[in-house]
Amino acid sequence: MGRVTERRRVIRIRDGAVSTRPDTLVAEEPLEIRLNGKPLAITMRTPGDDFALAAGFLVSEGVLGRADELANIVYCAGATEDGSNTYNVVDVTLAPGVPVPDITLERNVYTTSSCGLCGKASLDAVRTTARWPLVDGLGDEADGVSPPVRIEPETLSVLPDRLRAAQRVFDRTGGLHAAGLFTPDGELLDLREDVGRHNAVDKLVGRALQQGLLPLSGSVLMVSGRASFELAQKAVMAGIPVLAAVSAPSSLAVDLAAETGLTLVGFLRGTSMNVYAGEQRLALRTAVGGT
Amino acid sequence: MGRVTERRRVIRIRDGAVSTRPDTLVAEEPLEIRLNGKPLAITMRTPGDDFALAAGFLVSEGVLGRADELANIVYCAGATEDGSNTYNVVDVTLAPGVPVPDITLERNVYTTSSCGLCGKASLDAVRTTARWPLVDGLGDEADGVSPPVRIEPETLSVLPDRLRAAQRVFDRTGGLHAAGLFTPDGELLDLREDVGRHNAVDKLVGRALQQGLLPLSGSVLMVSGRASFELAQKAVMAGIPVLAAVSAPSSLAVDLAAETGLTLVGFLRGTSMNVYAGEQRLALRTAVGGT
Repeated sequence: MGRVTERRRVIRIRDGAVSTRPDTLVAEEPLEIRLNGKPLAITMRTPGDDFALAAGFLVSEGVLGRADELANIVYCAGATEDGSNTYNVVDVTLAPGVPVPDITLERNVYTTSSCGLCGKASLDAVRTTARWPLVDGLGDEADGVSPPVRIEPETLSVLPDRLRAAQRVFDRTGGLHAAGLFTPDGELLDLREDVGRHNAVDKLVGRALQQGLLPLSGSVLMVSGRASFELAQKAVMAGIPVLAAVSAPSSLAVDLAAETGLTLVGFLRGTSMNVYAGEQRLALRTAVGGT
Repeated sequence: MGRVTERRRVIRIRDGAVSTRPDTLVAEEPLEIRLNGKPLAITMRTPGDDFALAAGFLVSEGVLGRADELANIVYCAGATEDGSNTYNVVDVTLAPGVPVPDITLERNVYTTSSCGLCGKASLDAVRTTARWPLVDGLGDEADGVSPPVRIEPETLSVLPDRLRAAQRVFDRTGGLHAAGLFTPDGELLDLREDVGRHNAVDKLVGRALQQGLLPLSGSVLMVSGRASFELAQKAVMAGIPVLAAVSAPSSLAVDLAAETGLTLVGFLRGTSMNVYAGEQRLALRTAVGGT
């Protein structure tokens, strides 16, 4: 079974002084995800929470949305020469009746047979496969599904420190991305760490699926790095209305947020932040005006 | 044609004060790479240097190694409804006689039909496909291929600042990874930026291939983030003997470096750094001993 960290010898150089010592590194191993026995994707990940990672990956791809659509996840056993299990291949079996998609997936991007691949096609793919439109907080409280999420900028301000404080593996290795799920009041619900930022979010979403908590319509996703299209996609696919990131978003992440109603906050540092879309969920006391 | 940056409206919150202004974001768009007309991979990238990105990707995968193995790279034109070119699909044609690999590639990881997928299989795949073993600097100056690379820790210390100083797009967006190619004396040879760290390295390597500069056996690769297995793989496949990163390496990156002879330096900050493998290329004046 894989481990979250591994020990290696390191030569440390500090102001010209050289010493050798053991060092703790974040573990990285490939994980192959199979769907009903067929290879679907391989990701480099930190071992642990592998079933959640596989489930969350399939939520992001629009294959899974409810716990009862998932029949089973197992480690694919014993095909190495010595018959041992590497715990690096998981097979996901869908419940009877759940459609098995005809997917040729590169990592989280839908392939297309036309030459017209573009950002808009990526946006359309997410919008048409998302199960839970992010309509709350748009002033429409009559949808009967979930109350609108409203969050104070002051609450967002404390999330990076809370995320960082809860990162246990990062403290030992300095080498992990984190994704945290918070309530709109800033309470940490769950935190996952991984060498790949997309895996950390998949693990978070997958655990929520397994616990019957999707859509995560009353929660805020905070990530330790940047906000790429892929992370915004994962938030939307899990029904998460607010994505906050320590660093910069990309243009396509902002476009996806604007089109789906996702609240996207970047450069969240201290009491400063940039809001790129979905500002209706933020309790802004000052009128929004140009400068 | 895609642009490197795009403008979007942003709401800035600074200590409770709210203002709206235009903001510059790093552009992110999908790029589909086709090989002899067949779709091979899709990556989310910052537009620009797309031919170099495709060429470098194929170097990383062991398909290309010399400029004359590459017949042609073109943007696949006009299959959108209105007949316009999105400049998001490139088709690489190999020179006659160059073997077209039978690859089912997920992003830079070789798939396997057995259940025995493990880190060792990933290491083996790189070792067996690498065209230019990293033997220089191992005291073997008789190989006649390239002189051993030897680098001063003081020289490594200045690379992060030089990389950062040369990052033009980062200054405007804060949202880009950088990869820089340096001489062992610390001179910057080339720098590429991308929303994806692996793309930045592919662009660097692809340009070198196009210019007939592979293997890059006399150079040092410096990356702005962490050192994952994937980045170490790309260094090895391009014949680069030294990889330096601002942040932490993963266990598998260290294992690959140790197995292939790559010098791997992490946590390169000021006059401090950690050397995880290949220390024979560093001019260490103090004897290496335990503490």
